[in-house]
Amino acid sequence: MGDDGAVLRGPDDRELVIATDTIVSGIHFPPDFPPGAVGHRALAVNLSDLAAMGADPAWYTLALALPDIRPPWMVRFARGLDALARRSHIHLVGGDTVRAPVLSVTITVVGTVPKGQALLRSAARPGDRIFVSGPLGLAAEGLALWQDGQRRSRHIRPFLHPEPRLSWIPILRVCARAAIDVSDGFAQDLGHLLEASQVGAAVDLDRIPRDRRDPNSLNRALFGGDDYELCFTVPNARLPDLRARARSARLAFSEVGHVIPGRGISWQRSDGSAAPEPKGRSFDHFADPARRG
Amino acid sequence: MGDDGAVLRGPDDRELVIATDTIVSGIHFPPDFPPGAVGHRALAVNLSDLAAMGADPAWYTLALALPDIRPPWMVRFARGLDALARRSHIHLVGGDTVRAPVLSVTITVVGTVPKGQALLRSAARPGDRIFVSGPLGLAAEGLALWQDGQRRSRHIRPFLHPEPRLSWIPILRVCARAAIDVSDGFAQDLGHLLEASQVGAAVDLDRIPRDRRDPNSLNRALFGGDDYELCFTVPNARLPDLRARARSARLAFSEVGHVIPGRGISWQRSDGSAAPEPKGRSFDHFADPARRG
Repeated sequence: MGDDGAVLRGPDDRELVIATDTIVSGIHFPPDFPPGAVGHRALAVNLSDLAAMGADPAWYTLALALPDIRPPWMVRFARGLDALARRSHIHLVGGDTVRAPVLSVTITVVGTVPKGQALLRSAARPGDRIFVSGPLGLAAEGLALWQDGQRRSRHIRPFLHPEPRLSWIPILRVCARAAIDVSDGFAQDLGHLLEASQVGAAVDLDRIPRDRRDPNSLNRALFGGDDYELCFTVPNARLPDLRARARSARLAFSEVGHVIPGRGISWQRSDGSAAPEPKGRSFDHFADPARRG
Repeated sequence: MGDDGAVLRGPDDRELVIATDTIVSGIHFPPDFPPGAVGHRALAVNLSDLAAMGADPAWYTLALALPDIRPPWMVRFARGLDALARRSHIHLVGGDTVRAPVLSVTITVVGTVPKGQALLRSAARPGDRIFVSGPLGLAAEGLALWQDGQRRSRHIRPFLHPEPRLSWIPILRVCARAAIDVSDGFAQDLGHLLEASQVGAAVDLDRIPRDRRDPNSLNRALFGGDDYELCFTVPNARLPDLRARARSARLAFSEVGHVIPGRGISWQRSDGSAAPEPKGRSFDHFADPARRG
């Protein structure tokens, strides 16, 4: 931290993966968010990108822009950030703190992956099964509760403390063909993966894992953001290996559809009938300024 | 750019160096700065860190926070950024664009250096000569002119288009012992280097290169920020090599003092007499909110 930069020393048989994400107060989290949750979130969203690439977390840099330096705020922010960093085995190697009218945090993460094993969005092939690593829409539900003034409901937690799915990294590297993290809503993120792979998908709406006690759960599962679950495709031949490894790591997952030739998503019901195109819109920070905060 | 992160493939015999810096409108540059100059500056300040580490630029990520997306602004911003990136041989490998009340740009740069050859601040030894790569205080002079409403004076250029001293990188790796870039003012930055190396320095005020037509030049040279010149120490045995390589690369430089045992900077005149401790203050974004913009 004392030099103008940091020297990164990694093993020669691995490649590096880099990703960067910014979160801004009032846009990506409410202005009254606890400082520890801000620190946690700033790193979590970046770790989620590494997980989607199949890369093991290694180093990160922190750029903090804030209106003033209040030591108690800084201590709580750092505690939330550091707790996630420690259990993720990622090390802070550089930073910059500047004054700005509004709080924002930019983290750049560097991960390592055995050469040639990074997962790409563009590798999905027709016939692959499509999985998600956990229930979708819970963060959107938590956001709604937060905006409703609730602070103690346990349903707020997925929004307050998104958990990057790092346990999946070694399994995805071996079993998955393509992967993406679900940050902007499942419909949009799966769409990105399909587009990059130049394929389509058949998705069974009834199999999308969600909180069925919530009457808005399907909409939130498809279009809510901030879930930070992983969506990945697996070829049929690797399904037994996927199941064995996930069982051994005690990881749950759900099959929600399969890759087909063509373009776009074909929505279906469990009985195989076509479902009407779900209506909704994924989160777009520029299109919908009032939604957060 | 299509994936959650980018895979970096570098040669096995080199190490990576990473650095990150944020610039904020109204803090690090005036709100009426030309968009191309904002793009240029955001990358230049980071490239300067790589130069000070002796690392060759390789990749960068861009996190852009801005109040709205105006395509003409974006085009001019990108043009200024890209022009510097191209001639610096550094490649964009990731990014994030978010909405925020005030424009800020965070760039993280990754450079490569042959193993073990990264320059550190902590390597200076008593007896080393201290050099700077060019005149100091010109950016502070340009800022003063800009704040005075001048837009056409050529003296604005060092402030508007700081030029990272990349040509020095291969020379510093071979000849220098310790290095730092002059971003916060020479007195403060040399102080950081000395502190990291646990040594002191004797500095000849009369030899500090500056614009002598400017009556405030000494103050600006010692305490003005944003010069992005390099300050480095060289052991006596390597001086002939330094001179030969700098001549061959047509690079000017100035010797301003030498490293001594002890702590702090001993200011002197050319005749060897002690100079009074220069009065002034290096730029601190938090202490002096009104200074910029």
